[in-house]
Amino acid sequence: MPEHPEVLEKLIASSRETMLLMSTEELLNWDQRTMMPAGAAEYRAEQITLLSGMIHQRLTDPQRGEWLEQLAEDSSIRPESDAGVIVSRLTRQYNKEKKVPRDLVEELSRTRVLAHESWVLAREKNDFSLFSGHLKTIVRLLREKTEAIGFEDSAYDVLLDDYEPDARTREIENVFTSLREALVPLIEKVVGSSRQPDHQITSRRFDVDAQRKVGMEAARLIGFDFNAGRLDVTHHPFCCTLGPNDCRLTTRYSENHFNSAFFGTMHEAGHGLYEQGLRKDQFGLPTGEYCSLGIHESQSRLWENMVGRSLAFWEFYFPRIQSVFPSALQDVSVESFFGAVNLVQPSLIRVEADEATYSLHIIIRFELEQEIFSGQFEVEDLPEAWREKYRKYLGVFSEGDDNGVLQDVHWSEALFGYFPTYALGNLYAAQLFQAADASLGGLDSLIREGEFGPLLEWLRRHVHRQGKSSTAAEIVENSTGNPLSCEPMIDYLESKYSLVYGFSV
Amino acid sequence: MPEHPEVLEKLIASSRETMLLMSTEELLNWDQRTMMPAGAAEYRAEQITLLSGMIHQRLTDPQRGEWLEQLAEDSSIRPESDAGVIVSRLTRQYNKEKKVPRDLVEELSRTRVLAHESWVLAREKNDFSLFSGHLKTIVRLLREKTEAIGFEDSAYDVLLDDYEPDARTREIENVFTSLREALVPLIEKVVGSSRQPDHQITSRRFDVDAQRKVGMEAARLIGFDFNAGRLDVTHHPFCCTLGPNDCRLTTRYSENHFNSAFFGTMHEAGHGLYEQGLRKDQFGLPTGEYCSLGIHESQSRLWENMVGRSLAFWEFYFPRIQSVFPSALQDVSVESFFGAVNLVQPSLIRVEADEATYSLHIIIRFELEQEIFSGQFEVEDLPEAWREKYRKYLGVFSEGDDNGVLQDVHWSEALFGYFPTYALGNLYAAQLFQAADASLGGLDSLIREGEFGPLLEWLRRHVHRQGKSSTAAEIVENSTGNPLSCEPMIDYLESKYSLVYGFSV
Repeated sequence: MPEHPEVLEKLIASSRETMLLMSTEELLNWDQRTMMPAGAAEYRAEQITLLSGMIHQRLTDPQRGEWLEQLAEDSSIRPESDAGVIVSRLTRQYNKEKKVPRDLVEELSRTRVLAHESWVLAREKNDFSLFSGHLKTIVRLLREKTEAIGFEDSAYDVLLDDYEPDARTREIENVFTSLREALVPLIEKVVGSSRQPDHQITSRRFDVDAQRKVGMEAARLIGFDFNAGRLDVTHHPFCCTLGPNDCRLTTRYSENHFNSAFFGTMHEAGHGLYEQGLRKDQFGLPTGEYCSLGIHESQSRLWENMVGRSLAFWEFYFPRIQSVFPSALQDVSVESFFGAVNLVQPSLIRVEADEATYSLHIIIRFELEQEIFSGQFEVEDLPEAWREKYRKYLGVFSEGDDNGVLQDVHWSEALFGYFPTYALGNLYAAQLFQAADASLGGLDSLIREGEFGPLLEWLRRHVHRQGKSSTAAEIVENSTGNPLSCEPMIDYLESKYSLVYGFSV
Repeated sequence: MPEHPEVLEKLIASSRETMLLMSTEELLNWDQRTMMPAGAAEYRAEQITLLSGMIHQRLTDPQRGEWLEQLAEDSSIRPESDAGVIVSRLTRQYNKEKKVPRDLVEELSRTRVLAHESWVLAREKNDFSLFSGHLKTIVRLLREKTEAIGFEDSAYDVLLDDYEPDARTREIENVFTSLREALVPLIEKVVGSSRQPDHQITSRRFDVDAQRKVGMEAARLIGFDFNAGRLDVTHHPFCCTLGPNDCRLTTRYSENHFNSAFFGTMHEAGHGLYEQGLRKDQFGLPTGEYCSLGIHESQSRLWENMVGRSLAFWEFYFPRIQSVFPSALQDVSVESFFGAVNLVQPSLIRVEADEATYSLHIIIRFELEQEIFSGQFEVEDLPEAWREKYRKYLGVFSEGDDNGVLQDVHWSEALFGYFPTYALGNLYAAQLFQAADASLGGLDSLIREGEFGPLLEWLRRHVHRQGKSSTAAEIVENSTGNPLSCEPMIDYLESKYSLVYGFSV
């Protein structure tokens, strides 16, 4: 029992009320990206701006600071209790936000808008110089931000912390280096293999309505609850949460590409299973909120790749899609289909990358972000450094910057420190999947029977219901018995590609 | 130039900001009724409650009262200017809301929730006594409200004013009485006619996807802009506005009923044309807001009925839908189709009523509301009074109250004074249509050519762009040269039914 239960109650009520506004803002965003008529964009921006402002005001309200201070001094609140987690996570967030001067926040906002516009133009014209000035300003402002907040080891830790709380640059660097050193030769071996899957079979004609149907069916099979969620169409797929029982998935369909919508839906459904597995009674509080972006991405990758791209899954589900798409798949065996959805092909574009090369795209960005922030080279030199790393790690080359340094939106939105969470997601996923496999006595046979419940329940217990009560590192260590490592990921890829490409490891 | 331009600016900025919240609340409502997963209802109610509360607080903010007071005293603001309209309409609204004691507002809110629940149950069990207690409370509280606000002539004027500003009970009563006296014999004549349309042809099989396509096409043809709007599916169709370029229509489809979705879409598109025709630069201000519910309904009825159910329209559009639904319509002539969509059939249920009987359903409710408020009989006597009027005016009878006094949701939501706007809509529509016809030199030939632009432009000028700068009575008088009268409606119905039922008037 806390010394001042009424203070804790006020803090909780206020946080929940803020979440009512945040989830309403999410609806404005979701609607904009799925439903809103084109002409309505301008007014929608005004609605979103108003709500953002109101939310920001609430989050930085000094009254909140006073409550948190009172509660932080209360030794009767045990740190591992719900109240303890709520107080410590909110205090951490509040103190961090408080340290950033208001004019820096505003300058960053303004710059982001201009930088984003210039990035769109630069990408269209394939001319990095149109964007580099704004990017320089963003880097300068983010440096100021890291200095205002302060750090022990590395300024980059501060950036990371917004997306992967409590993560350390040094540790990620070590894991990523080992990962890169293992991935580069593995990819060379796969690409050089004499046996290659026939990926054309996933580019036959797949009726869009039927794709939607099997996508929803697969999402439902792995446990997504459509009574508390939806699936809609958008340009750039995402998953968002509008309430404890309202999780919205999105995807996009192409008649000539089976993979895009199907694995896209599995990916977003993985995010959705995490959201649906959070403690509903803690909605709006750190105890009911996702742990980190890396852990979030681990859930999407696990269901998309470790489950969805496994031979066991297709042994279970291929007869079903063969019956839905008879003319496209009647002459295809489950083994060739499994091969086709696991093609490895080094390419220039991150969002089109396969499982093996994807992490290298991320490692390149992570290394470049480090080098820019440590002042190793100037923003102007980015395009060349980009090309050099792509040549070296992936063996691909492009003259143009539109397919290079200009391909991602993130930097134009000041999202430095965000990219590593994608690769962390892959690593967490492989490590969690390996542990679940050991604990459940063989996931392959469960998946082959279409039994996804035990895996989901394992994830619910070790990941989803933790919310922010554990850090990402704690979740990994507690549920797998080991600190984060790239070995499970490498083991997983080697075992899959030895099946697809017919080599022994 | 006002004496205190900065005060006017603050008032306008604050009103526009309130509208940003109101339109966001509308999105929460729209989404709930079209998209939201079933499980999300509870949290959605919390989101809506929070926003309603914030909006109510802003609308009754004493600061707003001070601004309005200052501006109302400013003789340099001309009453007919935009500023004059804004100040006078907002002052009127503010003063009215201010007069209602806070505890009465809250008691009404609470009672509405309970009354609505008891109404659902009463309707389900076909037992009026389960609802009558709450209805009594509602009538008592609304009486208190009318006394708090005050009135000159009739307490009912105060209720009306929420939906049809500046309308007078006495005047409506006179028009409704004449209307009823003309409608009752007209309907008897129609029903007794030896020639009857074959309405079965609209109950053949009409593919739902194709219905959606022609519904959208027809909405587009009459001028609805889908770049600034949408059409979605819902249970109880409505139209709502989420921004100056974001008007959402809804409808529902049934494979065996052509009329429901097609005329439903025309109806909502009529509402939508009004919303899209309001002055966009005045969005969020009385100058850019619909005049009254009656005028709003006139726009939906005009496009649904005067245009959409005319012989001229089907001479233009029947070949098109015949080609879309060949198996349902190949053996049907345009004249029989026109007859089928104009069947007159007295019935118990308002929402299923045809054009001729619809106004009688409304007049019955209007008369009963009067009689309850003037204390002529008690709430307990309502079911009997209801049956008696239905027998007398429409010649139909039902033992059960579910098909009688319990059929509408309105009273359970304390919406007394709302019903008359439906019949006013019919009357306004007929009168406006007659004036446009005279002014444009024959609408029939324009409609027969699929030329809807001139009519829409006439409505834009005389109705839409007026916003709240004119009252409903002023719009009618200014655009038609006459005060409101039921004659145009009767003329219109007689001329249509003489065609369909083959009698001379």
